Amino acid sequence: MSKTRIAITGYGNLGRGVELAIRQNDDMELVGVFTRRDPSTVKLATEGVKVYNIADAAKMADEIDVMIICGGSATDLPRQTPELAKSFNVIDSFDTHARIPEHFANVDKAAKESGHLAMISLGWDPGLFSLNRLYAESILPDGKSYTFWGKGVSQGHSDAIRRVPGVKRGIQYTCPVEAAMDAVRSGSQPELTTREKHTRLCYVVAEEGADKAAIEQAIKGMKNYFDEYDTTVNFITEEEFDRDHTSMPHGGFVMRSGKTGKDGSTHQMIEYSLKLESNPEFTASVLVCYARALARLRAEGQTGCRTAFDIAPAYLSPLSGEELRAKML
Amino acid sequence: MSKTRIAITGYGNLGRGVELAIRQNDDMELVGVFTRRDPSTVKLATEGVKVYNIADAAKMADEIDVMIICGGSATDLPRQTPELAKSFNVIDSFDTHARIPEHFANVDKAAKESGHLAMISLGWDPGLFSLNRLYAESILPDGKSYTFWGKGVSQGHSDAIRRVPGVKRGIQYTCPVEAAMDAVRSGSQPELTTREKHTRLCYVVAEEGADKAAIEQAIKGMKNYFDEYDTTVNFITEEEFDRDHTSMPHGGFVMRSGKTGKDGSTHQMIEYSLKLESNPEFTASVLVCYARALARLRAEGQTGCRTAFDIAPAYLSPLSGEELRAKML
Repeated sequence: MSKTRIAITGYGNLGRGVELAIRQNDDMELVGVFTRRDPSTVKLATEGVKVYNIADAAKMADEIDVMIICGGSATDLPRQTPELAKSFNVIDSFDTHARIPEHFANVDKAAKESGHLAMISLGWDPGLFSLNRLYAESILPDGKSYTFWGKGVSQGHSDAIRRVPGVKRGIQYTCPVEAAMDAVRSGSQPELTTREKHTRLCYVVAEEGADKAAIEQAIKGMKNYFDEYDTTVNFITEEEFDRDHTSMPHGGFVMRSGKTGKDGSTHQMIEYSLKLESNPEFTASVLVCYARALARLRAEGQTGCRTAFDIAPAYLSPLSGEELRAKML
Repeated sequence: MSKTRIAITGYGNLGRGVELAIRQNDDMELVGVFTRRDPSTVKLATEGVKVYNIADAAKMADEIDVMIICGGSATDLPRQTPELAKSFNVIDSFDTHARIPEHFANVDKAAKESGHLAMISLGWDPGLFSLNRLYAESILPDGKSYTFWGKGVSQGHSDAIRRVPGVKRGIQYTCPVEAAMDAVRSGSQPELTTREKHTRLCYVVAEEGADKAAIEQAIKGMKNYFDEYDTTVNFITEEEFDRDHTSMPHGGFVMRSGKTGKDGSTHQMIEYSLKLESNPEFTASVLVCYARALARLRAEGQTGCRTAFDIAPAYLSPLSGEELRAKML
């Protein structure tokens, strides 16, 4: 069987993760990386694979089965995914939940017009967490769903810390509140706001001579970011920062507390969780396995846009239906 | 929109659970229950629904969209599902893992020949646990999967206890070993046998004057069932038994410990768990939501046999694709 030929657009943390994830799948190969930078300045981890300018992508359409687009959701993907869908089967990890319907419509139109297949919003949230919300709510229609995030780095909150005067380095972890999770697990179906479900844990390297009390106060009082949360600020040395706070862990929990039975008194609890040492590497692994499904569904003649909800799970695995039933069912 | 017309074959714990689950879904209605017993002896929980002899089922084929078959896997389903697939779109919870390929082939043949659609092995294991194994292994190909069961009642082991002389009532719970689960969560990818992952907890009501020490010894030494497990036997009164041990709780955990990254040193952990107060009611809820998918896929013209692996998640929900993308992605 010939391998599925994958290309990557955008070579940041996510793009590098996709490159490494492809190596873990024998039925796929990386055939090129596209960038807005000068290609000669981009050094890949893989020998023998070329880096191209994104402007040259369309010329290579015949050599690429699936283009994995690794840009940011704020400005890159809303433009890149519909544009690249004119020439490629594309997949992205667009994660601005509120703008998904609009992004879907744009990508669907471009892909249908050009006869390609696209998938958007693949990763873990949106993505695997969305799937778990859908499965759990379909199975237990009488119930309540909860999503908790963390422990993990929030880029926006880390940026906010670094804007405080006197802060040299800073990082913020969003942490789920154990007591809130236990309340959900008890079946009491509590009403919980995002604030009640999470605390904010900050690590800061202060500039020499900076007023640490003032920094702590500035962070804890920051409107929208920290003021309504239980926030902890820890001051550490730059050595500690480099040693303990340069990876990108994340994760979270999707829970469904449901009721069944004659008088709705039977409690049924479904829980899904991720504990990730690297958020971008994991998101990349999700993208790569959905790229397999994308290539297969395109080979069946499908066009337009899809999400995780539309993909039968068997398409994700390199195993045949027969093997899956024998080994995994 | 007209409702999906569901019928039930077999009215035990699972069949009763299906009857109650249908009430939680506005787009479905129960139109009949089929039994091998004298129909006049079967009292449903639902007013106005009739009970029929299973021999009369085929005559009612035009009035039923999906037949949910609630028999046992040992002898009922291998016979009933292919037979009923000649007249109906059918779904069952066949759970003898080793015989799934054979059952699939039989049901697939019958359904294709008669132009019906069938789904087998729906529930939580096989079913939701299988799905989680498939998703997790496709996403993290370099890793190890673990399934833990419990805390939950094992019917086979409870039966074995009740065969011991001097035992009046008895029940056995399979319990996952916390230390083994924590070892998996640590990322060490331990080799664990089923025995190392589970303990056996027994509650026994002894006959008056019975030798409790002898009962305990007989249970703990029972070959294949208990001798190689860490087994605890608790003697309780009949009142305690009736108060605490007549429901059918179950559950378990599916875990995938995987590695990603340049040198495979990044640990990524996926965990799915169920904590069910009623095993049959939850299995019934899974069957009913897959019955919705079955009716939709049949309306698209599909025939033959499917499993959970073949069903795109969107088919399980009463919401439209547009609603799902806006609310749940």
